[in-house]
Amino acid sequence: MKNLVGAALLGQSGGPTSVINSSAAGVFTEALKHENITAVYGAVHGIKGVLNEEFYDIGQEDLEELMRLKNTPSSSIGSVRYKLKDPRKDPSEYERLLEVFKKYNIRYFFYNGGNDSMDTCNKISKFFKKSGYDCNVMGVPKTIDNDLSVTDHCPGYGSAAKYVATTFMELYHDATVYDTKQVTIVEVMGRNAGWLTAAAALASYKGQGPDLIYLPELPFDFDQFFHQVQKTLTEKSKVIVAVSEGIKTKEGKYIPEMFQELKKDAFGHAQLGGTAQVLAEEIGKRINVKVRAIEFSLIQRSAAHLASKVDVEEAFNAGKKAVQAAVRGTTDRMVGFKRVSSNPYKIKYALIPLKHVANTEKKVPLEWILADGAGLTQAYIDYALPLIQGDSKAKLVDGLPHFAKLKKVRVAKK
Amino acid sequence: MKNLVGAALLGQSGGPTSVINSSAAGVFTEALKHENITAVYGAVHGIKGVLNEEFYDIGQEDLEELMRLKNTPSSSIGSVRYKLKDPRKDPSEYERLLEVFKKYNIRYFFYNGGNDSMDTCNKISKFFKKSGYDCNVMGVPKTIDNDLSVTDHCPGYGSAAKYVATTFMELYHDATVYDTKQVTIVEVMGRNAGWLTAAAALASYKGQGPDLIYLPELPFDFDQFFHQVQKTLTEKSKVIVAVSEGIKTKEGKYIPEMFQELKKDAFGHAQLGGTAQVLAEEIGKRINVKVRAIEFSLIQRSAAHLASKVDVEEAFNAGKKAVQAAVRGTTDRMVGFKRVSSNPYKIKYALIPLKHVANTEKKVPLEWILADGAGLTQAYIDYALPLIQGDSKAKLVDGLPHFAKLKKVRVAKK
Repeated sequence: MKNLVGAALLGQSGGPTSVINSSAAGVFTEALKHENITAVYGAVHGIKGVLNEEFYDIGQEDLEELMRLKNTPSSSIGSVRYKLKDPRKDPSEYERLLEVFKKYNIRYFFYNGGNDSMDTCNKISKFFKKSGYDCNVMGVPKTIDNDLSVTDHCPGYGSAAKYVATTFMELYHDATVYDTKQVTIVEVMGRNAGWLTAAAALASYKGQGPDLIYLPELPFDFDQFFHQVQKTLTEKSKVIVAVSEGIKTKEGKYIPEMFQELKKDAFGHAQLGGTAQVLAEEIGKRINVKVRAIEFSLIQRSAAHLASKVDVEEAFNAGKKAVQAAVRGTTDRMVGFKRVSSNPYKIKYALIPLKHVANTEKKVPLEWILADGAGLTQAYIDYALPLIQGDSKAKLVDGLPHFAKLKKVRVAKK
Repeated sequence: MKNLVGAALLGQSGGPTSVINSSAAGVFTEALKHENITAVYGAVHGIKGVLNEEFYDIGQEDLEELMRLKNTPSSSIGSVRYKLKDPRKDPSEYERLLEVFKKYNIRYFFYNGGNDSMDTCNKISKFFKKSGYDCNVMGVPKTIDNDLSVTDHCPGYGSAAKYVATTFMELYHDATVYDTKQVTIVEVMGRNAGWLTAAAALASYKGQGPDLIYLPELPFDFDQFFHQVQKTLTEKSKVIVAVSEGIKTKEGKYIPEMFQELKKDAFGHAQLGGTAQVLAEEIGKRINVKVRAIEFSLIQRSAAHLASKVDVEEAFNAGKKAVQAAVRGTTDRMVGFKRVSSNPYKIKYALIPLKHVANTEKKVPLEWILADGAGLTQAYIDYALPLIQGDSKAKLVDGLPHFAKLKKVRVAKK
């Protein structure tokens, strides 16, 4: 445990959420308070920015604007999808990082991201230690996918879940407006873990949600799906279905691959219809009923106007506590949440060894999925409900959100 | 001008909006106050419910629940897409309506809908007059399309516009997160009038919106579009495009028809890709850039969690004033808005003859479209900004909206 003196650096990584900037606000405003921290930097597009020596000087920003980050969606300093090479095979990128850290005397490194990013954090931390360079490295979790291990949940999930649940309730009202039969299939994000799709069950819990919910945790059987839709259609005129984009057959095929030949465009990009679109077409071929496919697409991950207050505050605190821990001398940890109770909701912040989170994936427990494979149990509702509580959104100016606009003063290259 | 004594009936018609139920709350709560109104009914699925003698007895509902309708999206008593036959060719449906109105002594009829519904209203009113049956018939406007003539704007538009503008701002932040080139094409509702797509310009006005906006008011030229996308890509790495679902070539073809052969499924339903999807595919074929298509789909018309307070209140007042006018003896009119000033925003309610609104369509003035055909002028911003002001949404219970749930007690058939 060393009391380091030097600059602090934050990098944002992976796909946007509504609250990744709230964690940035937590890191920045806390870091600016500590005497041991001589400068506060933001990496321009995550680890790529570090490799390129591209930093914003956060000390130049107004505090009010930094606090506005709490309710600004996406990644204000720029994110990246970039996986560092295995240092045992090719240490050159790690050597470059070390060189940059030394040059700018960066002694505190905070990386905000999902399991890939925690792996990056872990490898950097190990490499620096081996090289004898003192730097406290802390992970700050974020992902709408909620798939990080050990921690009870991840910042970003609560807000995305609130969006999914609220929008399903609204779609329920929309779908039931005419007295005709209709099947509505809605696609929710989540490649391997069904957490976000599961949030549709919160709308069903309110009696205003989907009838059938399919997660990627179970193999998807089209015949069973077709049978379940048909059966529900005999009971009621409107059927609403939630499907995860990541559902696969037991042979491991995504739904578009099941029914479509893989077409590639002139540049070799694979072109496949969306999961909901393909399922809607297949239902339309078999039943004479109006079918509609809806995809929440990018809207669901950046819908800051529907952010959960619990999520926004926890994201902020995760950033803040990462700085506090690092200044106390902690390294090689991710800030996580340990649930003390669900009702009333109470969590403790925990410092989880990075290696326990790196590259692992937490899925929805199979015992939380209904026996028919098309819905969630009360255990999931009890788990998720506390995470979507309260509203927290940007102040309105002209009826529209007033998002943060940083000055983004670049640090002079040394 | 007759002081009629009898029942009042409300029907909801056409596609949902966030505030059609707010108008219902205005009609119901006001109607329940008047001594001349002996009963208050809601038609089950609009005019179809009237033909079938299917009514809800609104007098059985709790006032608190009726007020909750103000923030409940879609059509709580059920809507319908049904156009009555021309009474000069086939008066049978009108005779049936007259029979039902007489049987239940309905002396006040309120119909909430778009231009088709105002036509229905107008024809019913004329037929009753000719038949010597006294009934005051009032239209209450609603449509996210904002395409009703004479009135300055329509309830439903402000809230949908607020959704479109807010979501474009959030997508802007989402789209700019990586340092790679990307084109995002977003499809907005509106078949013939581009009002809702124009709302994307409110996000651009905030510096956080689409670069290019295409409305159906102008013929769509693919080569010009392609050129404009390509040019914008040389200036910045992210291009965001808003397109109306209704854009057509100068030959009158919708975009999917331009590039796809019309496929029909086993039941004869035409299958066409969405406008944004097809444009994205075509751009992807011509430029080596990541392209993404997003469709706001049904989400945009029922997003009550983002409703504009101005819209919710005006919708409520339109319903309320329709009742007040009818009780005073007015008939054959639609409640509309006359703008007194935009800054500060001030309107007067007007009673517009139904025949002036029936079956006409108001489009975005061509002089409000930029010379390059891909954006809106300040005149549009000045027009639209007042309509999206303020928040008004359902109380949260469990972090989710508490929508109205009516008892829906049926009126006994006579």
